[in-house]
Amino acid sequence: MSALILRQGVRPLARSTLLSSRPIVGTATLLCRPSQRQFSLSTRRRLQADRPNQASLALKDEVREREERSEGSSTVVGSTGKGVEGPHYQDQIPSAENVLTDTSITGAWTMMNPIYTEAELDTVQVVGRPPVTVADRAAHGTVKFLRKCFDLLTQYKAVEIPQSVLQQNPIPIAELRAKGQLLSDQKWLFRFILLESIAGVPGMVGGTLRHLRSMRLLRRDGGWIHSLLEEAENERMHLLTFMTMAQPSIFTRALVLAAQGVFYNAFFLTYLFSPKSAHRFVGALEEEAVRTYTHCIEDMEAGLIPEWKDHPAPRIAIDYWRLPADSKLIDVIRAVRADEATHRFVNHSLANLDQKKDFNPFALVEANAETRGAKWGFTREESAVFAKEQQQKLVQAVREQTPAHAH
Amino acid sequence: MSALILRQGVRPLARSTLLSSRPIVGTATLLCRPSQRQFSLSTRRRLQADRPNQASLALKDEVREREERSEGSSTVVGSTGKGVEGPHYQDQIPSAENVLTDTSITGAWTMMNPIYTEAELDTVQVVGRPPVTVADRAAHGTVKFLRKCFDLLTQYKAVEIPQSVLQQNPIPIAELRAKGQLLSDQKWLFRFILLESIAGVPGMVGGTLRHLRSMRLLRRDGGWIHSLLEEAENERMHLLTFMTMAQPSIFTRALVLAAQGVFYNAFFLTYLFSPKSAHRFVGALEEEAVRTYTHCIEDMEAGLIPEWKDHPAPRIAIDYWRLPADSKLIDVIRAVRADEATHRFVNHSLANLDQKKDFNPFALVEANAETRGAKWGFTREESAVFAKEQQQKLVQAVREQTPAHAH
Repeated sequence: MSALILRQGVRPLARSTLLSSRPIVGTATLLCRPSQRQFSLSTRRRLQADRPNQASLALKDEVREREERSEGSSTVVGSTGKGVEGPHYQDQIPSAENVLTDTSITGAWTMMNPIYTEAELDTVQVVGRPPVTVADRAAHGTVKFLRKCFDLLTQYKAVEIPQSVLQQNPIPIAELRAKGQLLSDQKWLFRFILLESIAGVPGMVGGTLRHLRSMRLLRRDGGWIHSLLEEAENERMHLLTFMTMAQPSIFTRALVLAAQGVFYNAFFLTYLFSPKSAHRFVGALEEEAVRTYTHCIEDMEAGLIPEWKDHPAPRIAIDYWRLPADSKLIDVIRAVRADEATHRFVNHSLANLDQKKDFNPFALVEANAETRGAKWGFTREESAVFAKEQQQKLVQAVREQTPAHAH
Repeated sequence: MSALILRQGVRPLARSTLLSSRPIVGTATLLCRPSQRQFSLSTRRRLQADRPNQASLALKDEVREREERSEGSSTVVGSTGKGVEGPHYQDQIPSAENVLTDTSITGAWTMMNPIYTEAELDTVQVVGRPPVTVADRAAHGTVKFLRKCFDLLTQYKAVEIPQSVLQQNPIPIAELRAKGQLLSDQKWLFRFILLESIAGVPGMVGGTLRHLRSMRLLRRDGGWIHSLLEEAENERMHLLTFMTMAQPSIFTRALVLAAQGVFYNAFFLTYLFSPKSAHRFVGALEEEAVRTYTHCIEDMEAGLIPEWKDHPAPRIAIDYWRLPADSKLIDVIRAVRADEATHRFVNHSLANLDQKKDFNPFALVEANAETRGAKWGFTREESAVFAKEQQQKLVQAVREQTPAHAH
């Protein structure tokens, strides 16, 4: 999704890295020559180290080192310099505030991963769309039921810890965990990994089915496919991020396999017969995801997950979201939550559209972060207005760009 | 695919549009301010016209107009300014020749559609990889058999027209078509539409399956997914381009539906059990595609398809490949052929890799156009060397970028 509206005077975090820990406005640009792009700071450091890197597709450090020691991994193609994803279009200083007149931002054929400012990470609220039709109720009901089962499986209780307990010093965390009122870090990870391993399925299924439909009906798609594929890629990056912290047991892996097998087929059939219900389902699912991540962030901020206090952000997350090199895990989880809010917004909005005829209003540009955090989505009329506004901005931008003599 | 190696002094065609018909070197840049991007010229013209555009997903003019007259299409979301795909990252003048030091070129998370120079379009040759293993022979054999069936269905004969006939004035085209030695334009289109409607399937299936595998095995993918998805999107754009010229009959549509149903499932199962064979199959398929398009281009150049003589390029093609606004259909078909050569190259190279462990050597940058046109692909060793070279260039580029004081 093109999550790229840079508001007046606000710069993405990545460019502020060298000067201070986290300023937002008015960063200097010593490193950034106007017409060139930069690699992210963490990429730069890794490349400069220039150690002969061997490759492994595993993520957790111990696993990766073990694999690289044991196999003759110099025979793996791409074995040097693993994990360097390369320059990112957004490393460039945008030359204009408005994403549509800022023509350095790539257009509809590129997949954009979101890069958030500090303020944008705080705009996410737990909101939900009230079900309207019978299909809505079915979708929301399915999600609520699945959540109940999953909460049971992962021993998650959405329990409010009383202030009296929180004000104790030290907070009796072990006791609360024993009582099941708090999740340990391992339980949180287990939950996240299971969730994200199926969260990447809907976007890919939706994108594939719309791709196939476009080709067999010999009609244009209208910009949906790349948004859906971006969503899938984004969810997969969430999973890979959590995978750097966990070494799942054989039990978790079996669960993941089973869950994917069931969910992929069920969602495929749902999308074939009723894409509207499928998007509604995903929207409801993402509402729950935002709720869960909000709970986790609140726990972390209250110091209820001491293992994660000041835990550094995984490298793959720093690269992907272009976070400052000194980011912590909590920043990563805030970014993940913001992504889920975006998916909630997009899927509910898509569910409101005519699945056959409407264009994707977010094909060129995403609604801004406050909207995505605070609303559950656009109604069909709001989508139409939004699409029209963006179109008019494009026309305006083109008029400003073209010198008179070129007509 | 990142088909973006701009060699010394060669500029993509799109920027030369305003000055002359098709210069390659040394174009002026009146329109292109160094740090900003431009919309393609055809997009600019369309946006400036600012007629109240109504939307329809159909492609052929008559069909689109009919749909837009009949329905209340102002209710379709995105109904104004249909088909404007927006700015493209490659509209920007690259500030360096080498794609890796030219940090204005986007990195691994973007889908790049190919933009070719005039010279690159001519480098494509009909080459094939000799089958080696039993699986190779099976894949090539299947492709050859399918081609025979398809040639029978579309009445295609790979017959060389004798020079004596070609030198007649006028060339007896109608007679040759009646004899089946030449295809009419409608027959060519029928062939292309059928082919491209299944050509978009392998990339999407491969991308989906690797995406699912990465998530259920909880391992990184190594850069394959986005290359495969790009390939699928590219093939779908070929189809949409041809769809602007054709209004397929109900017979063609039924064939397309049936073909997709069979092929999607067959390829899905093949990729599940033997991705190597699947890639080999696609490589062999693309060899045949290059052969067919070469035949078509030669026919067009010899004047054997008079209906397409000086036929203007469809708008969607001009936008997608950033062709000059005065391009002809033959330029589009040359671009399509170059795309097929790229897919031939990539799929054969991928088939040579270890499907489980190797990274995608083309994740960051494509091999240059001459290589892709002249060779069927890289061996696994060549891929490893190529990946290593690109990695070293990245390290070099990073060193040049980072000022000393920033360490």
